[in-house]
Amino acid sequence: MDTNEKSLALHKENKGKISIESKVSINTREDLALAYTPGVAEPCRKIHEDLREAYTYTSKGNLVAVVTDGTAVLGLGDIGPEAAMPVMEGKAILFKEFAGVDAVPICLDTKISEEIIQTVRFLAPTFGGINLEDISSPRCFEIEKQLDDLLPIPVFHDDQHGTAIVVVAGIMNSLRLIKKELSEIKVVLNGPGAAGTAIITMLMDMGIKEAVICDEYGILAGNRPEPMDEHKKRLAQRSNPQQANGDLSDAMKGADVFIGVSVGGIVTREMIQSMANDAIVFAMANPIPEIMYDEAKAAGARIMGTGRSDFPNQINNVLAFPGIFKGALAVRATTINNEMKVAAAKAIADMIPEEELSEDYIIPDALNKKVAEQVAEYVAQAARNTGVATI
Amino acid sequence: MDTNEKSLALHKENKGKISIESKVSINTREDLALAYTPGVAEPCRKIHEDLREAYTYTSKGNLVAVVTDGTAVLGLGDIGPEAAMPVMEGKAILFKEFAGVDAVPICLDTKISEEIIQTVRFLAPTFGGINLEDISSPRCFEIEKQLDDLLPIPVFHDDQHGTAIVVVAGIMNSLRLIKKELSEIKVVLNGPGAAGTAIITMLMDMGIKEAVICDEYGILAGNRPEPMDEHKKRLAQRSNPQQANGDLSDAMKGADVFIGVSVGGIVTREMIQSMANDAIVFAMANPIPEIMYDEAKAAGARIMGTGRSDFPNQINNVLAFPGIFKGALAVRATTINNEMKVAAAKAIADMIPEEELSEDYIIPDALNKKVAEQVAEYVAQAARNTGVATI
Repeated sequence: MDTNEKSLALHKENKGKISIESKVSINTREDLALAYTPGVAEPCRKIHEDLREAYTYTSKGNLVAVVTDGTAVLGLGDIGPEAAMPVMEGKAILFKEFAGVDAVPICLDTKISEEIIQTVRFLAPTFGGINLEDISSPRCFEIEKQLDDLLPIPVFHDDQHGTAIVVVAGIMNSLRLIKKELSEIKVVLNGPGAAGTAIITMLMDMGIKEAVICDEYGILAGNRPEPMDEHKKRLAQRSNPQQANGDLSDAMKGADVFIGVSVGGIVTREMIQSMANDAIVFAMANPIPEIMYDEAKAAGARIMGTGRSDFPNQINNVLAFPGIFKGALAVRATTINNEMKVAAAKAIADMIPEEELSEDYIIPDALNKKVAEQVAEYVAQAARNTGVATI
Repeated sequence: MDTNEKSLALHKENKGKISIESKVSINTREDLALAYTPGVAEPCRKIHEDLREAYTYTSKGNLVAVVTDGTAVLGLGDIGPEAAMPVMEGKAILFKEFAGVDAVPICLDTKISEEIIQTVRFLAPTFGGINLEDISSPRCFEIEKQLDDLLPIPVFHDDQHGTAIVVVAGIMNSLRLIKKELSEIKVVLNGPGAAGTAIITMLMDMGIKEAVICDEYGILAGNRPEPMDEHKKRLAQRSNPQQANGDLSDAMKGADVFIGVSVGGIVTREMIQSMANDAIVFAMANPIPEIMYDEAKAAGARIMGTGRSDFPNQINNVLAFPGIFKGALAVRATTINNEMKVAAAKAIADMIPEEELSEDYIIPDALNKKVAEQVAEYVAQAARNTGVATI
């Protein structure tokens, strides 16, 4: 059986991947009286007196909703809420297995942003955090922003920030290795969707020297004739300091870092050769990267990462989201701010000791379950430092 | 420690009562590739091709949402969504412990019926059924009806039908014991809220001779001067064939059955004495029944049930809801219709063999986990018989 067949068998045999279990036993009359009526009225009363007690007496404090509308699922696109469920269940079990966080898939039967926002707002009292997932760009930006403003609990769109945090971790370690500073580097980003936008925004916020962003028409620039929506116009304003025009190959000349979250095979050897010395390439199109590992290395890339587990330096956001929520929940953070995201990237980067760092080992293994613990610690500390922790 | 203190300790120690667990292990690269990317794309594709495959490859088919707005929680009233959570978690673990059904609490931050309906409609693709809980009357009637019409999965307001089904089971066994027929009996119902309305409606649908319904002003009758909302007007039309006026004591004269879901202590010995021979009394106000067990028996009641576990014949809806959903999910029923509810009542009644039936044993023990299995079988069969089963 190949992976697809094995995956079907696994899902069918188990009828999905999550199970809701009781943490208390219900065998005697007293069990029933304590966990249910009449005893259960007492924790209800305590919470009614002080809403914060929900964190003491219910599962809320460790419970995350994994919410999608099924519009941007993996590489499959808009396949709807029912078909998105296997991914959301997968996410839910990774939360548990990597960070001990309880997570519930919620697949929504609407694509209207206002309806998604309202639905999540209404079900929020149940949860300690909201993980948005596989919601298409550019709708995802507004949905996340509005929900984060509206709700007293963290809201985090993993497709944006999960990926961004792991890429930034990889860049941090790459720069350690090649001894360049963030403030010196030019970064080219191809594919300003959910992940691409979050990556380049995070890097610009961290103070890189120059960012140039390309879409299928070439470089985003205020004066270009090709169409740009509001989202791209904002990116064009913030990036590309010379407001240069051109295509991807123009953009990549002299760049220190190339980041692709776009289409397989569109980067050539010549483009890699035109980059600065010690070029860093993150080619994350899936399953076929923008340029293959061997080709990029042959063309002179010093460091190369992809989204695949069969090449070195896999960018896998399982390194980020479990620990981020664990850390945010631990201090009941009201949001997941930029400082917490940078702290998460640093936690991931710091997992690799200086002496073990090498071109093919700048990102820890996706299966290393110690990562989530360190991410949680760094994120909780950053939340405290920035005043968004509430305990 | 008393029950309240013990309950607080139990809830605090466990931080709530539910845990989300993985049914598959994630330890190797292959585990990750099958349960998550890239393998997970294959079940997504299958479901996208045929939505029914969600029942094959995801947890949907055994997953129930326990939805509340926190407006009618136990005897506590409108305490809000956060404070309702301990009850919803309790419900969720009873689903699992009694019937193996996975259930997720969803506590909603809105009391507006249209918003509740819309929210549940949007999150429905995730679930195989919706259990509405602790939503105040009369809003609960319209919310349940509209959702049941809108959604292809069962929607069941447990406060209405769960209680009704167990009471009807008790009446079935009482009538077996005293050798009366449903078609001969006069039933008085005091308290036409969610549960009371469902109980008396179920009994009227089953063909009792006469129903008389009282609220705090007395008998519901079309011509009475005291106020009645639309819901009570409809009940007044369907019940009380003579359109008699009067108070509860007038209503109870000559009645075969009294059912109270109202206020502790409001039924007197004289009222019980005025009932027909072999009077059946279900006094379910909590924690103080409409009349105490000893008093009712002393006044001549032959059979007496309450909501309490320290008296015989406890009406506890844990006897109904786990098995009802288990049966409905087993045949992927599109709704839970009257026939399925009557079948559930019969399943509960049939748990007590003829020879064991007695005045103090007309309802099986709430902790008898075999009840759910029999309820599920009867309910599934009724769904098949009435054409609402889809497999």
